Amino acid sequence: MKLSELGEFGLIDLIHQITDKFKSPRQLSWQQLLVGIGDDATVWQGGDYIQLATTDTLVQDIHFDLNVITWEELGWKALAVNLSDVAAMGGVPQYALISLALPGEVEVESISKFYTSMMHLAEQFGVAIAGGNIVAATNIVITGTVIGYSKGAILKRSTARLGEQIAVTGYLGLSAAGLEMLKGKVSFDAETSNILRQGHLQPVPKVKEGQILAGLGVKSAIDISDGLVADLSHICEASRVSAKVKIEQVPVHPVVKANFPNYQELALYGGEDYELLFTSDKAVIEQTVQALNCPVTIIGDIIEENLPKRVTLVDRKGDVIPYKKGGWEHFKEGVSKTKFT
Amino acid sequence: MKLSELGEFGLIDLIHQITDKFKSPRQLSWQQLLVGIGDDATVWQGGDYIQLATTDTLVQDIHFDLNVITWEELGWKALAVNLSDVAAMGGVPQYALISLALPGEVEVESISKFYTSMMHLAEQFGVAIAGGNIVAATNIVITGTVIGYSKGAILKRSTARLGEQIAVTGYLGLSAAGLEMLKGKVSFDAETSNILRQGHLQPVPKVKEGQILAGLGVKSAIDISDGLVADLSHICEASRVSAKVKIEQVPVHPVVKANFPNYQELALYGGEDYELLFTSDKAVIEQTVQALNCPVTIIGDIIEENLPKRVTLVDRKGDVIPYKKGGWEHFKEGVSKTKFT
Repeated sequence: MKLSELGEFGLIDLIHQITDKFKSPRQLSWQQLLVGIGDDATVWQGGDYIQLATTDTLVQDIHFDLNVITWEELGWKALAVNLSDVAAMGGVPQYALISLALPGEVEVESISKFYTSMMHLAEQFGVAIAGGNIVAATNIVITGTVIGYSKGAILKRSTARLGEQIAVTGYLGLSAAGLEMLKGKVSFDAETSNILRQGHLQPVPKVKEGQILAGLGVKSAIDISDGLVADLSHICEASRVSAKVKIEQVPVHPVVKANFPNYQELALYGGEDYELLFTSDKAVIEQTVQALNCPVTIIGDIIEENLPKRVTLVDRKGDVIPYKKGGWEHFKEGVSKTKFT
Repeated sequence: MKLSELGEFGLIDLIHQITDKFKSPRQLSWQQLLVGIGDDATVWQGGDYIQLATTDTLVQDIHFDLNVITWEELGWKALAVNLSDVAAMGGVPQYALISLALPGEVEVESISKFYTSMMHLAEQFGVAIAGGNIVAATNIVITGTVIGYSKGAILKRSTARLGEQIAVTGYLGLSAAGLEMLKGKVSFDAETSNILRQGHLQPVPKVKEGQILAGLGVKSAIDISDGLVADLSHICEASRVSAKVKIEQVPVHPVVKANFPNYQELALYGGEDYELLFTSDKAVIEQTVQALNCPVTIIGDIIEENLPKRVTLVDRKGDVIPYKKGGWEHFKEGVSKTKFT
């Protein structure tokens, strides 16, 4: 069987099974692993500290197109997607390693722009660029690794419970709409173009927001990289629950709503918005609405504790809306980035 | 200017300069960074612990050829090269993240073999495979990240001092000789072939040895990935010293000496042996000879404290031997793996 037949999540399950077979209770390293494969970041119990680590790869012509993205935007995004994974665990990022596979014909100036922009984002979040490595290659591949720590409370995918509300930070659909524009499908005035472009190419990870959620007692969260439906499905699978989303309540970015007839699709399936999707009981969700500087919107509920662990979309009348296979699954149908830490 | 003109080490210098400009003494993350870009691994001061982190990438058809390497060997090597970087700092590896860029046509069975073999190596060194990520790509790219800790004493590249002896663990040349055989340049009986193949494709990182060296008070070390001359040059540059190597004393693996007329070249420039190259005063070196379970061979001395920071090779009469530009530099002349953590 080929990977294209098994699909990404089948592959992740397989890797999980293989590594599990070797888990030894006698080995300290496995005892220290609090959260392994299957969440946004690895969680590791050190002596009296809890460490987080995550890694993410961007491949040229799959995750980015140099005809569209600038080197500045690429440097930003390569770090941002990793910071977002730390945010989704409620953690504090500390330092990053950047591994670059680069063709020899790349301009030195491009790499200067790449790192300068990355450093601006790093500075904003108090992150040091601590190392990495460089190899020659025919195609650009960028792997970022971010290491950080948790103050104690961790946001996991596996802790959503029956009766909890589902909420999301910010607005959705901007990144996917930006991609549609960048692909040349539509064009807009300069201001709209800029918002869309930045939404897709310079997402701001919700690092502080993740920490506040964890501090308020939220237990379950994920960052929206694959798309709302797909990422909520990840929570459902990991938590063994089902979810109901009222699609009318999904906060679509106003620029998207005003300019894209397919705005609901973009918000539900688009991905790469790097907002936080989380679940908690009503009282805690209310506190998050007060505490966060960005909008928090309740979009649905966790409705079942058992199989079939799926996401149901309903309209304002409560009627079930059929949906596309959520998110992007590598190998099978398209590509984006999905984590298996 | 293109990267192919600047070269790998020029690029590393550039990145170092850019990140340095953003180093802020007000930012805690930079204060905690004990060793950043320019050594085998990043060293990070946590509260009461010292953390190590390193990353390394293998690119298909540049670092490995699937017509030659098996998936089992690839899984082993992808982790081994990272464990070797932790070894070169005298550290204890704890867990790894594996980032895979894979074409959809790869067989699922291949990935099973890859992980099973990697887990065998991980188990041997008490390392957990804690996460990673998977993306689709047209070409296989594997980035491993290993995180560990230091017991306190750290082996650095920048701490070699005038008058110290230079020593190396084990034997050199086996990996490069193995590569020559695998490229079909020469063939041997089954036993010899097996030793050569394993030398190139399944190196055993000197993790325990690195820890013992650090414990005995060795200050300066590097793992031999680029080649003896190139890696010693890295120490000379980082430490601002020069080195003299007596080439007759370089420990060539007996299988290489017996079968390859160019054995000396393979041992001096070949690389990827993942032995440890280190410097220390005579008394400490003598202790390492006693303490390590593998051979330790004194191959030369640190002879100057100032520029031109270079490696000189001498024959048994003390005459200087001219040498090839050491190691492999990406973009410029060929490729291998070189670190810039």
